[in-house]
Amino acid sequence: MEFKISRDFLAQIEQLISENKGQELYDLLHDIHYADIAEIMEELDQKEASYIFNLLDSEKTAEILLELDEEVREKILKNLTAKEIAEELDELSTDDAADIIAELPQEKKEQVISELEDVEHAKDIVDLLRYDEDSAGGLMAKELVKVNENWNVLTCVKEMRIQAENVSRVHSIYVVDEDGRLKGRLSLKDLLTTSTKTPISEIYIPKVDYVKVDTKDVEVARIMQKYDLEAIPVVDEMGRLVGRITIDDIIDVIKEEADKDYQLAAGISQDVEADDSILELTKARLPWLVLALLGGFIAVKVTGQFEGAMENYRVLFFFTPLIAAMAGNVGVQSSAIIVQGLANNTLGGTLWQRLFKEMKLSLFNGLLLSIILLFGSHFLLGHDYIIGITVSIALISVIVIASLIGTFVPITLNKYGIDPALATGPFITTSNDIFGILIYFSIAKAILGF
Amino acid sequence: MEFKISRDFLAQIEQLISENKGQELYDLLHDIHYADIAEIMEELDQKEASYIFNLLDSEKTAEILLELDEEVREKILKNLTAKEIAEELDELSTDDAADIIAELPQEKKEQVISELEDVEHAKDIVDLLRYDEDSAGGLMAKELVKVNENWNVLTCVKEMRIQAENVSRVHSIYVVDEDGRLKGRLSLKDLLTTSTKTPISEIYIPKVDYVKVDTKDVEVARIMQKYDLEAIPVVDEMGRLVGRITIDDIIDVIKEEADKDYQLAAGISQDVEADDSILELTKARLPWLVLALLGGFIAVKVTGQFEGAMENYRVLFFFTPLIAAMAGNVGVQSSAIIVQGLANNTLGGTLWQRLFKEMKLSLFNGLLLSIILLFGSHFLLGHDYIIGITVSIALISVIVIASLIGTFVPITLNKYGIDPALATGPFITTSNDIFGILIYFSIAKAILGF
Repeated sequence: MEFKISRDFLAQIEQLISENKGQELYDLLHDIHYADIAEIMEELDQKEASYIFNLLDSEKTAEILLELDEEVREKILKNLTAKEIAEELDELSTDDAADIIAELPQEKKEQVISELEDVEHAKDIVDLLRYDEDSAGGLMAKELVKVNENWNVLTCVKEMRIQAENVSRVHSIYVVDEDGRLKGRLSLKDLLTTSTKTPISEIYIPKVDYVKVDTKDVEVARIMQKYDLEAIPVVDEMGRLVGRITIDDIIDVIKEEADKDYQLAAGISQDVEADDSILELTKARLPWLVLALLGGFIAVKVTGQFEGAMENYRVLFFFTPLIAAMAGNVGVQSSAIIVQGLANNTLGGTLWQRLFKEMKLSLFNGLLLSIILLFGSHFLLGHDYIIGITVSIALISVIVIASLIGTFVPITLNKYGIDPALATGPFITTSNDIFGILIYFSIAKAILGF
Repeated sequence: MEFKISRDFLAQIEQLISENKGQELYDLLHDIHYADIAEIMEELDQKEASYIFNLLDSEKTAEILLELDEEVREKILKNLTAKEIAEELDELSTDDAADIIAELPQEKKEQVISELEDVEHAKDIVDLLRYDEDSAGGLMAKELVKVNENWNVLTCVKEMRIQAENVSRVHSIYVVDEDGRLKGRLSLKDLLTTSTKTPISEIYIPKVDYVKVDTKDVEVARIMQKYDLEAIPVVDEMGRLVGRITIDDIIDVIKEEADKDYQLAAGISQDVEADDSILELTKARLPWLVLALLGGFIAVKVTGQFEGAMENYRVLFFFTPLIAAMAGNVGVQSSAIIVQGLANNTLGGTLWQRLFKEMKLSLFNGLLLSIILLFGSHFLLGHDYIIGITVSIALISVIVIASLIGTFVPITLNKYGIDPALATGPFITTSNDIFGILIYFSIAKAILGF
């Protein structure tokens, strides 16, 4: 039942724009969801997108603005005056409006704020701009329904009707004291089922989950998931209710975090999409490749140190890619499991316990793989057993070391406040390549003596 | 404000259990959230966990069951009779109850269903068991608030009070016709602000997003995110309203999907956690490693084919790990971007357009990296320019081929209904290793002639 943009539909829109048939286009787009119109605009060129934007009502264009890709939004906003932008923002909730203002250049930012019509709304938005975007303060909206603990249900319902006008989705009714400090909550269900004369203080639930304005966004996400919350109130240093975060904002945090980890694991250094420009994609891809290349230089140098083996054991050099690949794969497996454990907060025990377990695991896996290698190198590749034994012993050692590095690095990065997911990408594979080759040839040299 | 399990607290619990001080333990756990009690139980041994479970009220234990890790839950359930399990399930909503029943062995499943007290509830659960767990039907709950389009607001509110008793969170009020077909929805806000005599048919919103019972869960997640929905109704083949999916279920789908992609990229073949047993971890890690090892055999064989170069160009063999690593890194970058594009449904254009763009991108990146390599191999590693030029030309070729493979494979897997994320793991790095080395030596042979 989702709307799909067809090529025909796009062609129809482009034609209507080129023929300047505004009313027909307006009628055509009238029943289409703003999220879909945003997608349509992203398929069109700048001029056509602006044409559509200027055609629609500000109620719809404000939502479209929010859905657009950042680059497209920037272009659209560049063509609007401060007053026009302010009109769009007046339609949005405080958190969304603050997000858009935050993207504007400093000068335009101030102009737009001064043009906002609703003074309360403007004050709330300015207040939100103070917070770090990765904190609960940066996620929250000021729109919420709150009632005083001293009221009764009737007053409460009246007040709520007024407040609810500004709130698109009522999740919970928060109860505060005279000083605005969060005391508890009322459920909507209670409201549907209690008599109007009951005082609020008698029916509110005093136990309420909350976060502070400076709680990290990923922490807020974890708490809301764990306790299965659809909205959570945010309090300031004094315990006063200053905002609320809803589950849809949290989904964005979860997705962004997962995407970021995935991209780090794949060696992509900034958030890009397949449809971004070649320059953007290069900026995201080249840095790690350059680092991997420099790491490769070290691997070349290390291999070169063992040139002596060329005389009698040249076959050893055929195995270097295999050793390097196994080191890389094992290292990434180890660190990925640690990174997920850290992200989900399920990682128990000390670093030493982790390393000890990983050692047992990698010894076990390494032994199995070495046996395969031993027979494989003899029967499949036709090498002498002495070569097979040498490479197999090296393989176990490399697997153990690689998995210890894969365990140690993310835990240590995390301890020093660095994103542990860094340890899953080319960084770990490159260093494991180098260590792997060094260990491999050192062991071979010790056994075979060249 | 989140509860943290301390070692002291765990020790206190263990002591109370060993001294059989049930009442004290009950009081201690009384104010603790079920999600936290589930975490506590996971830290205890089987007997202690069961002790706590038997101590608490079924209202709380039912929720705890849901939060527990699958293995712990299985053990707890094993110790309960069918009647006891049925009592737990009677406390849960239909979707959660169905999820738990689905995990039971066939025989116990039937016993539990026959012991369910609330017949309507039982019927709903059995109905849900029919659906594939990865479909909208498998995600949905039967609990929802629906009203007939022919009622007025007063009847509607009365009926809702009854229905709302069974629904933990009222998101939307759905409007159906006499045959139960979904017609539209009423917002809670409308309910707070409309007079009681108004007929429903006048105030309901006829445009409502919905999914069908057989829509894929990831598709449901995408639609709910795109259209910013907190709940979505589910209809059967006849358009009849049969359930609803809430946003918290979708968060699980999003997290699972992201975790799965991440694990595939890291070469982990089933969902494991750092705290799982060594056997479980081996089962998840060994398969891809064995495959990578077998791929490594091919790489050894391929390298061996170029043994002739050992005489005059042995330095070429020092570069194989570098070439293989670059091929692997580039391939993973390319396929990760495609996999994310497919997951987010943002991938436009045809396969040929993708490949053409990737070719331009990789030529550009490859050129930059080759220049670094050319100078690096001369100034840093001290090799002849002819070697540097040979390796550089090989590097560009390898990068282009690896990125084309990285683009082609996930798109093609996806086309044939196979998870494209498979293409980001050891599978792509291993095949790129092999192709990389083959191309590298072939180019070197063509240039240097050995």
